[in-house]
Amino acid sequence: MQKVTIHDIARELNITFSTVARALNDHPAISVTTKEAVRETAKRLGYRQNKVASSLRSGRTNIIGVVVPSLDVSFFSSVVHGIERVMHENGYSILLYQSNESLKQETKGIATFLASRVDGIIASVTAETFQYEHYTEIKKRNVPLLFFDRTLDELQVPSVTINDYKGGFMATEHLIRKGYKRIVHISSERNLPIFSERLRGYTDALAYYDLPFDENLVFRGNISMEYGKTCVDALLEKQVQFDAIFALEDYMAMGAIHQLLAHGITVPDQVGVIGFANEAFGAYITPTLSTIDQQTVKMGEEVANLFLKLSKNKKFYEAEPERVVLEPLLMIRQSTAR
Amino acid sequence: MQKVTIHDIARELNITFSTVARALNDHPAISVTTKEAVRETAKRLGYRQNKVASSLRSGRTNIIGVVVPSLDVSFFSSVVHGIERVMHENGYSILLYQSNESLKQETKGIATFLASRVDGIIASVTAETFQYEHYTEIKKRNVPLLFFDRTLDELQVPSVTINDYKGGFMATEHLIRKGYKRIVHISSERNLPIFSERLRGYTDALAYYDLPFDENLVFRGNISMEYGKTCVDALLEKQVQFDAIFALEDYMAMGAIHQLLAHGITVPDQVGVIGFANEAFGAYITPTLSTIDQQTVKMGEEVANLFLKLSKNKKFYEAEPERVVLEPLLMIRQSTAR
Repeated sequence: MQKVTIHDIARELNITFSTVARALNDHPAISVTTKEAVRETAKRLGYRQNKVASSLRSGRTNIIGVVVPSLDVSFFSSVVHGIERVMHENGYSILLYQSNESLKQETKGIATFLASRVDGIIASVTAETFQYEHYTEIKKRNVPLLFFDRTLDELQVPSVTINDYKGGFMATEHLIRKGYKRIVHISSERNLPIFSERLRGYTDALAYYDLPFDENLVFRGNISMEYGKTCVDALLEKQVQFDAIFALEDYMAMGAIHQLLAHGITVPDQVGVIGFANEAFGAYITPTLSTIDQQTVKMGEEVANLFLKLSKNKKFYEAEPERVVLEPLLMIRQSTAR
Repeated sequence: MQKVTIHDIARELNITFSTVARALNDHPAISVTTKEAVRETAKRLGYRQNKVASSLRSGRTNIIGVVVPSLDVSFFSSVVHGIERVMHENGYSILLYQSNESLKQETKGIATFLASRVDGIIASVTAETFQYEHYTEIKKRNVPLLFFDRTLDELQVPSVTINDYKGGFMATEHLIRKGYKRIVHISSERNLPIFSERLRGYTDALAYYDLPFDENLVFRGNISMEYGKTCVDALLEKQVQFDAIFALEDYMAMGAIHQLLAHGITVPDQVGVIGFANEAFGAYITPTLSTIDQQTVKMGEEVANLFLKLSKNKKFYEAEPERVVLEPLLMIRQSTAR
């Protein structure tokens, strides 16, 4: 199909090219009658205006920029699917930028989105985001900004998160109810609220069930399989007594299971293991991994819906920011099924 | 840190705001001496020009758009890391768009990138891309386009792929050398060259080792765990004799292993299984999965380097398109180790 141009409209109406162009641009020198004729003809012929030109006019691009730490983690890619589903239905395009947990990259990504004149930015911050001028810049320009999962509460912007405290409590409580008593928690060295909340849930669950808190059972390292292995090695080497592990995140849990099995320790009989995030692989490994599901697709849909609702309001930043908190779900699989 | 503005430069040099602005924009009315003074002061104070404005001037945005079928698949997310690594080092930002295997979404993603005035597009096409006007449009606008893995050969653009024929041959040959004789191939219902090439490799390896080709051993379906299970069920139900499976893709292979184990058939002793793609989970499942590695990070780096090399040339589309073909690597793990 040949592309319809301004020339075709001009020919059809027997007027000049520049009259058509100015009519389409709503130029004051062109009469209302001519403008109407041009618009009708344009519509009938299937003329599509140049997107850049029309976005400069309307000030809208219908692009939403999404900044995430990593799309390798199925947590984030799954949230993105939720965002895409809702946004595509509403005529938006979603562009993605991976910060790869780097503040520098995150800053660059936001600059890129602002330069591309996106209509909004949805972000989950890196584990090293302690400064946040790049996020303040988004607010200054009055571009809607929303966070999901990893937020900067000081910034006063809308967000969708899950109740990480409750998730930490549920995971620990599940192990306690299964009869495990010496429960290790593998946490992160990073100071994100989502991580400290899970730790607080762990601590409170122990207290609630009258189990002592033991600092020797709490580890803090980077989120990786390797660190899960390292913790098991350290526990065995120091001959620390333990019968369960609640890992902050599924990759750590998988590493711990690997290393336990490598030392001939059975899971879940001798040691129970539960993760957090419900990564895709958890259902495939042996034993399958118990975990906390974060309702990822729903999280993406909720943050998209929140954007759609709030962005109708020109004064996006004037109201108290809305904060949606989803409930975590306990996924019981083989690794705690004794 | 306070942002340095044009006003700061004006104050520093004791000249007007508009003189500074015009100097920065290389206005002919401003003297060379003034321009130099302005530029030096701007540099010393750390003034950063507005990106949109400067990209409109230079015609460059330093943004590369990457279109991929799905970032859930570690093959694609891993290639993207390779692209990002090289492009970031060279001052580009990478924006990602998921087509989710939909031609409609792919078309929209490309329109979005073109509207955002990206400096180049790197893509891997969907399994349903039979029309490709949206790709032709990129060429028409003289925006550099490169393909990786899944290409449209008719379009005559540079690409980086792996030798899928050789990969299919290697996988089949490995099974034959391990003593397996009745080798099933699970292929795709989609007509992408990468898939038919793997099938051709399978067929040729059988012929090379004097094993008969049996159409009953070839399945064609969608790339999913479920389809791997379906194939195993069909083989068992029809009592087809087989002792190995070469799956087009790791998810299919994992589904097949699951279903074999569920029926009490041991892997690799009774049936050997090999996949393709070296997805991350393959090293974690039990038994660990033998597969073909596609040098994903290298593929990303190669396509980025090819872009950098070719985009220096203003006449990107005039030369014969360069096609880089990488070698597949055989990854031997437990699922074929008998």
